[in-house]
Amino acid sequence: MSTEKTIFERRESEARSYCRGIDVVFESAQGSEMKGEDGRTYIDFLAGCSSLNYGHNDPDMKQALLNHISADGLAHALDLHTTTKAAFLESFEKYILEPRGMDHKMMFMGPTGTNAVEAAMKLARKVTGRENIVSFTDGFHGVTLGALAATGNSYHRGAAGISLNGVTRMPYDAYMGEGYDTADMLEVMLNDSSSGMDAPAAIMLETVQGEGGLNAASKAWVERVGRLAKEHGALLIIDDIQAGCGRTGTFFSFEDMDVQPDIVTMAKSLSGFGLPFAAMLIKPDYDIFGPAEHNGTFRGNTHAFVTARVAIEKYWKDDAFEAEIAKKGDIIAESLREVADMVPGAFLKGRGMMRGVDVGSGELAEDICGRAFEKGLVIETSGSDDQVVKILVALNVPEETLRKGLDILVEAAREVTGHKQIAAE
Amino acid sequence: MSTEKTIFERRESEARSYCRGIDVVFESAQGSEMKGEDGRTYIDFLAGCSSLNYGHNDPDMKQALLNHISADGLAHALDLHTTTKAAFLESFEKYILEPRGMDHKMMFMGPTGTNAVEAAMKLARKVTGRENIVSFTDGFHGVTLGALAATGNSYHRGAAGISLNGVTRMPYDAYMGEGYDTADMLEVMLNDSSSGMDAPAAIMLETVQGEGGLNAASKAWVERVGRLAKEHGALLIIDDIQAGCGRTGTFFSFEDMDVQPDIVTMAKSLSGFGLPFAAMLIKPDYDIFGPAEHNGTFRGNTHAFVTARVAIEKYWKDDAFEAEIAKKGDIIAESLREVADMVPGAFLKGRGMMRGVDVGSGELAEDICGRAFEKGLVIETSGSDDQVVKILVALNVPEETLRKGLDILVEAAREVTGHKQIAAE
Amino acid sequence: MSTEKTIFERRESEARSYCRGIDVVFESAQGSEMKGEDGRTYIDFLAGCSSLNYGHNDPDMKQALLNHISADGLAHALDLHTTTKAAFLESFEKYILEPRGMDHKMMFMGPTGTNAVEAAMKLARKVTGRENIVSFTDGFHGVTLGALAATGNSYHRGAAGISLNGVTRMPYDAYMGEGYDTADMLEVMLNDSSSGMDAPAAIMLETVQGEGGLNAASKAWVERVGRLAKEHGALLIIDDIQAGCGRTGTFFSFEDMDVQPDIVTMAKSLSGFGLPFAAMLIKPDYDIFGPAEHNGTFRGNTHAFVTARVAIEKYWKDDAFEAEIAKKGDIIAESLREVADMVPGAFLKGRGMMRGVDVGSGELAEDICGRAFEKGLVIETSGSDDQVVKILVALNVPEETLRKGLDILVEAAREVTGHKQIAAE
Amino acid sequence: MSTEKTIFERRESEARSYCRGIDVVFESAQGSEMKGEDGRTYIDFLAGCSSLNYGHNDPDMKQALLNHISADGLAHALDLHTTTKAAFLESFEKYILEPRGMDHKMMFMGPTGTNAVEAAMKLARKVTGRENIVSFTDGFHGVTLGALAATGNSYHRGAAGISLNGVTRMPYDAYMGEGYDTADMLEVMLNDSSSGMDAPAAIMLETVQGEGGLNAASKAWVERVGRLAKEHGALLIIDDIQAGCGRTGTFFSFEDMDVQPDIVTMAKSLSGFGLPFAAMLIKPDYDIFGPAEHNGTFRGNTHAFVTARVAIEKYWKDDAFEAEIAKKGDIIAESLREVADMVPGAFLKGRGMMRGVDVGSGELAEDICGRAFEKGLVIETSGSDDQVVKILVALNVPEETLRKGLDILVEAAREVTGHKQIAAE
Repeated sequence: MSTEKTIFERRESEARSYCRGIDVVFESAQGSEMKGEDGRTYIDFLAGCSSLNYGHNDPDMKQALLNHISADGLAHALDLHTTTKAAFLESFEKYILEPRGMDHKMMFMGPTGTNAVEAAMKLARKVTGRENIVSFTDGFHGVTLGALAATGNSYHRGAAGISLNGVTRMPYDAYMGEGYDTADMLEVMLNDSSSGMDAPAAIMLETVQGEGGLNAASKAWVERVGRLAKEHGALLIIDDIQAGCGRTGTFFSFEDMDVQPDIVTMAKSLSGFGLPFAAMLIKPDYDIFGPAEHNGTFRGNTHAFVTARVAIEKYWKDDAFEAEIAKKGDIIAESLREVADMVPGAFLKGRGMMRGVDVGSGELAEDICGRAFEKGLVIETSGSDDQVVKILVALNVPEETLRKGLDILVEAAREVTGHKQIAAE
Repeated sequence: MSTEKTIFERRESEARSYCRGIDVVFESAQGSEMKGEDGRTYIDFLAGCSSLNYGHNDPDMKQALLNHISADGLAHALDLHTTTKAAFLESFEKYILEPRGMDHKMMFMGPTGTNAVEAAMKLARKVTGRENIVSFTDGFHGVTLGALAATGNSYHRGAAGISLNGVTRMPYDAYMGEGYDTADMLEVMLNDSSSGMDAPAAIMLETVQGEGGLNAASKAWVERVGRLAKEHGALLIIDDIQAGCGRTGTFFSFEDMDVQPDIVTMAKSLSGFGLPFAAMLIKPDYDIFGPAEHNGTFRGNTHAFVTARVAIEKYWKDDAFEAEIAKKGDIIAESLREVADMVPGAFLKGRGMMRGVDVGSGELAEDICGRAFEKGLVIETSGSDDQVVKILVALNVPEETLRKGLDILVEAAREVTGHKQIAAE
Repeated sequence: MSTEKTIFERRESEARSYCRGIDVVFESAQGSEMKGEDGRTYIDFLAGCSSLNYGHNDPDMKQALLNHISADGLAHALDLHTTTKAAFLESFEKYILEPRGMDHKMMFMGPTGTNAVEAAMKLARKVTGRENIVSFTDGFHGVTLGALAATGNSYHRGAAGISLNGVTRMPYDAYMGEGYDTADMLEVMLNDSSSGMDAPAAIMLETVQGEGGLNAASKAWVERVGRLAKEHGALLIIDDIQAGCGRTGTFFSFEDMDVQPDIVTMAKSLSGFGLPFAAMLIKPDYDIFGPAEHNGTFRGNTHAFVTARVAIEKYWKDDAFEAEIAKKGDIIAESLREVADMVPGAFLKGRGMMRGVDVGSGELAEDICGRAFEKGLVIETSGSDDQVVKILVALNVPEETLRKGLDILVEAAREVTGHKQIAAE
Repeated sequence: MSTEKTIFERRESEARSYCRGIDVVFESAQGSEMKGEDGRTYIDFLAGCSSLNYGHNDPDMKQALLNHISADGLAHALDLHTTTKAAFLESFEKYILEPRGMDHKMMFMGPTGTNAVEAAMKLARKVTGRENIVSFTDGFHGVTLGALAATGNSYHRGAAGISLNGVTRMPYDAYMGEGYDTADMLEVMLNDSSSGMDAPAAIMLETVQGEGGLNAASKAWVERVGRLAKEHGALLIIDDIQAGCGRTGTFFSFEDMDVQPDIVTMAKSLSGFGLPFAAMLIKPDYDIFGPAEHNGTFRGNTHAFVTARVAIEKYWKDDAFEAEIAKKGDIIAESLREVADMVPGAFLKGRGMMRGVDVGSGELAEDICGRAFEKGLVIETSGSDDQVVKILVALNVPEETLRKGLDILVEAAREVTGHKQIAAE
C-alpha cells in the first residue's frame, strides 16, 4: 500500500469505515469511474451512497463551478441573498416544483441529511404542539440525537450514550411478511386512545429504505399511511434523502403515489456534484419557523447552488432522463436476477436504479462485494445484517460501463458461490 | 429591490434570517469586500460568522481549488482514502498538531459545527459510560437535538418541541459578576454526592462565547475547569468552532492556557474558504468509535481538504500571522473603546479579533449596525439580548480596509447616539 | 344530598372521581354490602377495584387488627424487623410461595401499586443495564412518571406534562383481532437488529388487563412472551396488582401458565382488608438493590401485615377457595351472557371473577351502571372508551348476594336497552 | 438473635435497610418507646423518620381507630365520599386551613410522599404548560421516576437506570457558604434568556432538608425564592412531607415566613398514627386535574382519616403544642451543643424539633448512633455523607424520656470521641 496510507492510520479516527474494505487511495474520478493514485481505474457502483446520481465531475456542472469560483462568486454567504441562490431557486421552482404542482417552500439548513431530518422533526413538533413522531422499522434518518431516535439500526443507536426519545416505531410495509398489512397496526393504534401511542406530530418514512436493505414500500401502503397521517392531524414527512433526486426513476421517489407530503427532506444528490447540501420542502402553511429559529453556519452552500441548478436544468427539463433510468433499472434487475439464481432463497430488492439482491447473509454479501472490488468494482452492502448487495451506480452511467460493472458483479458472485458459468457451456 | 428578490419571498422559508437585516442580493466577494448585484461594495465585518477568517476567495486557496476541480479531483468521497485528504492531514499534523505537542487524532463527520458537537457528546458518553454533560450559561453549540441541549439560548431551545436532556448548566466565568468565582459552584457540586449533578461524561465549553455575547473566559478559570474535569473523570471538550482557527490570536483559542482538551470541535473557518467542513480532535485513548458508528454522507468534504491545506500552509507555518492578529486586535479595541465612550455603561467584550462592545440594549446595538450597513458595512450583533456589537472581520483584512470599516462603525455609533465628533473640534 | 357533601366540594380537589357517579356518603361496610349515612344499603360489585377481594371488614382480619392495635402493636416501623412482619412472611412463604415452587424474595416499597411497578422497572434496568421496557397496548401500570410511561391510556398519559420515555409499546394478545398472533411482531422486532426496538430490560404485562377492558391474554401467548423474554435476556415482569390475589381463580393470575416471572408486582388485595400495601416478588438472583436504594417511608405497612397474614391463612391453606371462585365465575358469566344478548355485538371479557361485558359504547355501559346504582348496586366500567361493564365483586361474596346483584345488573341492562324480560313471558 | 430473624434473610429483599443497623425484632411500641420481642425497651429518636410526630399508638387516636374498625367503618373506599373523610376535612379546614388564611383545596393520592410529589410536579406542569422544575442541591423528594429527578442523592439517582429529566438543580440556601446568596444565581439565571434554564413550571423546596442533612433555609431566602417564582410565572411547591406537621415548631414549616405556596405536599405524620397517607394542598385556581387524571387505588386511606382528624383536634386547636415544641427544641439543641463541643468543627443543624449535629464524617456519626443504640436509643444519621446525627423524636415525647434519650446520646458521643465527662469532675 501507498506510503500516504500511514497518515490515515496515524491521524484519522478509527471511525473511518468505507476505506477499510475499499483499500485504495483515490486521486480523481470522472463519471462512473474512479482512479487510484496507482493509476488503476474502478467502476463506481456506490456513487457516494447515492450522492453522485450524476456521476463524478459532470462536465457541465464542473464548468459552471469553475466559472463561479473564477469570477469570485461567493463560497459562503450564510443565508444572505445571492444571485446564485436566486438562480437555483428559480430553476427548482420552474423545473421541479411547478410541473409537479407543489407549492412547497424550501428551507436550507446545515448541509447534511441528518440536519434536514432534525429540522423536519422540530418543525412538525412546533406545528402540531405534539412530541411523538412515528418512524418505521429499518428506517435510517441520521445519527445526530434527534434523527437517531428515528433510526432503527442498533449499532448506530447504541452510540447515542443517552436515551433516544420522542419516536414510536411501527412496522414498515411488508415487515411481517405476506398476509399482514402492517398499516393495520398503525391504524388500530392511532384509533385506540389506550394504545399508548401518543398522538403523533408526524409520520416519517422513506419510500425505499436505502440503508435498511432497499425495502421498497408499495404505492398502496404509502398512500394509506399518508391518509392516516392526515386523518390524525400528523404531518407526513417523506425522507427522500437517498431515494430522491431520480434514484427510483422520478425526481421525487413518491411521484407515482397519490400522496402530498407536508415536508420532504433532501440532501445527498441535491447538489448534483457531491457537494454538501441539504434542504427541506415545506407546505406553505407549515413554514412557521421564526428567523434563524433553526439555523446553521453552512446553510445554503453557495457552490452547491451552482451545481444543483445545472443538474436540474440538464437532467430534469423533460422526461428523457426518467426513461433512461427505467431502462437501466431493468438492465440492473436482470443481472441481479442472475446473482439471485445462484443463492437459494435470494431475492431482489428495491426499484428504479436503487436495487439490490438479498443473499441471506452479510458474510456472503460481503464476500461477493470483496471479490468484485478485486476485479475493479466499487460496490457495497446494506440491510440490518449487511445481507443485501446494493447497486447505487450513477443514473447517467454509460450503458457500456454499467454492463461492464454488472458483468464483474455476476462473475464475482459466481466465483464466491462456486456456480459454474452456464452460458459458457 | 431587485426583481430576483421575489423568488426568495416566494420560495425560501421564513426561517431565513441575515438577509432580512442585510437587504442586498450579493453577487461576488473578494477578501473583506462583498459586491451586490447593483455593483455596490460592502466591507465585511461579519466574515460568515467567523467562517471566513481568511476572507472571501483567498487567491491561493482559490487557485488550488480550481486546479483540483479542473483535474477531476474528487468532490465527494465518503470516508474513502484520497490523496487530497492525505495531503491535508499531513499539513495539519506538521504545522498544527506537532508544534503544539498534540497527539490527537482527527475525525470528520457531517460538515457542520453542530454535527461535530453531537459526535463529541456521543463519544464522551461512550468513553465514560456516563450521560450528563456540563455546559455553561450563554453557551451556543448548535441546534440539532443533542447539541441544542447544551445551548443556552431560549429562542433556539424553544424550537426543539421536545425535552432537551442530558446536560447540566453551570455558570460561565464571570457570570455572577465580580466577587463570585463561578468555578467554586462547579467544584462544590462535583464534590457533593447529593448535589443532584450526575457524574459528568464531559465538561464542554467555549473559551470565548461567540453567540453568547463575546464572553471571554479567563485563563485561570479555564484551567481550573480543566483540572476539575480531570479529577472527576470527565472529558474536557473545547468547542473551538467559532473561537478557533486564529480568531482569538492563536490557531486554537486555548493555546495560552495550560489545558489539554480531550476533544476539540472545529468547523467554520477550518476549510479556510467558507466551505462546509467539520472535524473533532480526539486524544488517542478516546478514539473508540467503531467504523461508521457516527457517520454522515458528507463527512470529509474533499474540496474543503484542498483549501484547508492551503490555509494552514499559507498562514500557520510560522508566527507572523499571530503577530498580525494581535496588532489588528488592538486597532479594533481602540475603535470599540470610542464607541463604548459614547454609551454610558458600555464595555468591551472578547479578545484577539473576536471583539465587540456591549451597549446595554439590543435595540441600540441593532440601530448602530443598521446605520453602519447603510454606510456600506456588514456587521452584526450577538449576546442574549443582541446587545453586543460584534466585529468578526477576516483576520487577513488589509489594515486600510479594517480602519475604513471601523471608521464607519464609529460614525454610525456617533450618529445613532447623537454624540458630536469631538476629534473634529 | 347530605350537608356533609358540601365539605367535599369546598375542600376536596376536582380530581375526585368515583364519588361523582356514586353519589352517596358511605358510613360503613361489611362483606359485599356498603351502607350510606342515610342507612341505605348497596351491593358492592366494585370491591375497591379489586382491592377488597375478601370483602369489607372480614371478621377474622378485623379481629386480628383490633387485637394488634389494642396490644400497641406497631403501626409504623419503616423497614425494621417486627414480629408482625415475620409472621406474615412465614405464612406467605408457607402457603403461597413454597406450594408453588417459587423461590422469590419479597420487597416492600411505598404501599401503592404504582410504586411496586416503579421499583420493578428500576430493578430490571439495574439488573440488565438496559433501559427499554416493553409494555403492551391497553396496559395500566400506574400514574407516577416511570409507571405512567408503561401505561397506555391517553387521558392519564396526557397529565404527565413531560415526555414519557423508556418504554416500547407492543400489541397485546388479540389486539389485532383474529388471524394475527401479535407475539409474531414482538419476536420479529426482537430478532431484527434494525427494528429500532432497543434490547429490553424487561417485558412487563398483566395477564388480564383490568383497566384496559378485562382483556385476558391466552395461556399460549403469555408463555410465548415469557420465552421471548428469556431468549433475549429480558426480565419477565408480571404486574399482578389487579389480577392477582385470587381474582382470576388462583392466587397468582399466571398459575395455570408455564411461566416463571422474574418479578411479580402485587398491591390492591394483598393486605386482604383494603389497607395500603404493595410488594414485589423477585427471583433471588435479581435481588440486587442495595439497602434502601429504592425506599419509601411507608414501606411495609405493619397493620397490613396483620390482615394479609390472616387472609392467606384463612383463604389459601387449601384449594377450596379456588373452587368457590370458579363456581362464582360461572354464575357471573351466565348473567353477563344475558346482558350481552341484549346488545348486538356485545361480548364477554375476562376470566375467573374478573369479568365484564363489552357493550360497544361507553355511553351505554355507563347508562347500565348508572341504572344499576339507582337500584342499589355499586358497579363500574372499564376499557379504553369505558365500554365494558365490569364486575369485581368480592371473591367471598355470598352466593345469594351475588345473584341479587347480578339480577339488578340484568334488570338495569334490560331497562336501558329496552329489552323485554323474555323469561317472564 | 431471634429465630424469627431467619425469615427476613430468607425471604425479604436485600433492599431492607434500617433493620441492618437496628438489629432488633420489635413487638410493640407506645409513645416514644419501642419494645423488642425480648422485652427490651428502646427510646425512639427516629420516630419513623418524622412519621410518628405524635409517638406510637397515641391513646386517643388508637381508641378512635378501634371504634371505627369495630363499627365496620370503611377501610378502603377509593375516593368515594365517606362520613369519615368529611369529618377529617372539616377538622382540617377549621383548625389548620382557616386559622392560617389558606383557601387551598386538598387532593389525596396514593398514600406516599413520593406520590404527592409526583402529583405536584404533574399539576405544576399542567397549570403552566412548562416542563422544567427547579429543585435544590441536597433535596430529597422521593424515588419514583418523576420525584427522583428532583432528588439530589446520587445513590438513589443511580438506581433509576434511565435518564432523570425535567429538573434544573440550583444551590440551596447557604450551599456555597458565607458570602454567597445562592438566590442571586437563581435570579440571574431566571432573568437571562440565554442561561439555558428553561422557564420553570415550579420551584420546589423543603424549608428544612431532612434527608439532605437538616439544612434549614433562612426566612429571607425562602421568601425571595417565593417572590422569584411568582415573578417568573412558576408555582411555588413547598414539600412539607418531613418538615411539616409540627416538626419545625408550627404545623406547616413555613408559617413564620411570608410565602404563599401554591402547592404543599404532605405525608409522613399527616395521619398522626404512622398510617400511610399523603395529600397535597392546592391553591383553588390551580385545582385543574380532571377526575382521576392523577389517581391511585389507595388515595384517601380511610383509617388514616380517622387518626388524622384526632391528631388535629388533639394537638392543633390552640398554640399550646407549639410552645411545647419550642421548649423541647431548646432542650435538644443544648445536648447537641454538648456533642458538638466534643468534635472539632462540628456544628448544629436544623430548627424546632428537627435538629442534628454535623460531626464532619459519616463514620463518626454512625459510630455515635451505633453506640447509642447499644445503650437503648434508636437514632439515625442523615446528610450527603451521613455525617449528621439526627434527632427526630416524637413532638409529644415526655420531657423525662427526652432527657433520658439525650443523655444516652451525649454519653455515646463521649465514649466514641474519647472525651472525658467534664461535668463529673
